[in-house]
Amino acid sequence: MRVVLLSGGGGGARFARGLTEVLEPGELTVVGNVGDDLEILGLHVSPDLDSLLYTLGGLIDGERGWGRADETWSALESAASFGGEDWFRLGDRDIGLHLVRTQALRVGTPLSEVTAQLTERAGVGTHVVPATDDRLRTHVLTPAGRFGFQEWFVGRGHRDDVDGVEYEGATEADAAPSVLAAFAAADAIVFAPSNPYLSIGPILAVAAIRDAIERRRVRCIAVSPLVGGKAVTGPLARMLTRMAGGTTAAHVTDCYKGLIDALVIDESDAPADAEVELVVTETLMRDRDAERRLAEFVLGLACA
Amino acid sequence: MRVVLLSGGGGGARFARGLTEVLEPGELTVVGNVGDDLEILGLHVSPDLDSLLYTLGGLIDGERGWGRADETWSALESAASFGGEDWFRLGDRDIGLHLVRTQALRVGTPLSEVTAQLTERAGVGTHVVPATDDRLRTHVLTPAGRFGFQEWFVGRGHRDDVDGVEYEGATEADAAPSVLAAFAAADAIVFAPSNPYLSIGPILAVAAIRDAIERRRVRCIAVSPLVGGKAVTGPLARMLTRMAGGTTAAHVTDCYKGLIDALVIDESDAPADAEVELVVTETLMRDRDAERRLAEFVLGLACA
Repeated sequence: MRVVLLSGGGGGARFARGLTEVLEPGELTVVGNVGDDLEILGLHVSPDLDSLLYTLGGLIDGERGWGRADETWSALESAASFGGEDWFRLGDRDIGLHLVRTQALRVGTPLSEVTAQLTERAGVGTHVVPATDDRLRTHVLTPAGRFGFQEWFVGRGHRDDVDGVEYEGATEADAAPSVLAAFAAADAIVFAPSNPYLSIGPILAVAAIRDAIERRRVRCIAVSPLVGGKAVTGPLARMLTRMAGGTTAAHVTDCYKGLIDALVIDESDAPADAEVELVVTETLMRDRDAERRLAEFVLGLACA
Repeated sequence: MRVVLLSGGGGGARFARGLTEVLEPGELTVVGNVGDDLEILGLHVSPDLDSLLYTLGGLIDGERGWGRADETWSALESAASFGGEDWFRLGDRDIGLHLVRTQALRVGTPLSEVTAQLTERAGVGTHVVPATDDRLRTHVLTPAGRFGFQEWFVGRGHRDDVDGVEYEGATEADAAPSVLAAFAAADAIVFAPSNPYLSIGPILAVAAIRDAIERRRVRCIAVSPLVGGKAVTGPLARMLTRMAGGTTAAHVTDCYKGLIDALVIDESDAPADAEVELVVTETLMRDRDAERRLAEFVLGLACA
């Protein structure tokens, strides 16, 4: 069963790991968000692609929830002592990856090709593909001004309310080469329990991807990132309240109008009236077992 | 007393440290070799400038003789696991410096300006200046072919005999801005006990620097890098034997024809006939005291 998953980092990456335990090797393609990408210290960093790679490759620091296990922090400390920026936390092992990627991008290798090489090196059997090889950057509009995603999220600790989100470069962005082929071959499409505005939104902002989903002949299932009307981590609940008017399942389906056939919601979320089918299960992924159970549930629903 | 020192890394850097203990802050300008510079993993590495910065800034790993003390090695290990090159040893703290430098160079900051910023950040009061801001790279001609310096020195463990040395880019290279001003203001010029072919040679290959030394009105003293006809470290003795015909003091002075007024040689080196004055002292820098004593001796000679 070939599945295309749209995903951010964090919870999306853990859900992807659950899918790999249910699907055969090679059956899963994860289309990763690149709206969070940044250039810092001359390095091209792709936080969501890296969370996917680290999680699927068994390299992630499970407790911290991001970056590499057994990480050291000497390079950033040194860079800061010489006047380099250190507001964005980069561990040494993480920097090793960024060096290889940045060097490849600089000689013209597309991000999708670099990502394929890196995941293969990490022994990851899943296809991890950036939504686009073109430059696409998420910006947030706040009462304090317009900020690049990482400037707002990390630099300002996402303290500002968000009135709107812009995906700079999305209009001109082509889908990465293998993305459309993956949609064409897919038996199901799934949206991971990631932030609709900040993780899934930048992927859907690529017109060719949105078109492919709108014209699909297979089911498309989204997993709500809310548990009891709250985000497991991150600023989603606050964003939904301000931008969509609430944090019920219906406010989530509104983010995916015309794109999904069903929304999987947590038992703790009161059923709401929504334009698509709402299906209830336990969505909180407390451990690896829970990841797999949620993945099984969603795949069962996608085949229904 | 204003002094300009031409220096490589290693022993040259230790001699420079000795000079800083004798001179007043700001009196010493060290013109560093850039022929060893390389681009690796997308980073611009300047090994000799860094040895100077690390030694003068108290950051060097004294036992290893290069790189940072308390170093970790995670980034290179990680880069290698993702297919990056790891034949050139780069520690994490070292990489932190290279990231800052590379980023500055990429936006057009000249190497001399970057170096001034980095040394200032490290609290180094000595002016450390690259011979040139232009690209200058040492290559060696060997029976096995022509190699870039680091490819031969590190990559091949300098196992090949050297028939000749070329300084690519030297003909077109301008001296870095402050270099000529330092020569104009100098009360003495000193060549550190560095390899004449690989460390001092690339500096002298910059025509404006050679001219400034030839037209000097102050004494120019070289310190022989030989002790008992042998190099303290590195391939110098083998190079001198093959390219100059021997390892006496006269073979060293031949490398500096028309440029020096005296050569300081070690007690263990038999006096030889040479075109310039040979002055004997203990040149082996066993400890910080020995560095200072050698520096005092050389400055005394320069004022003679």
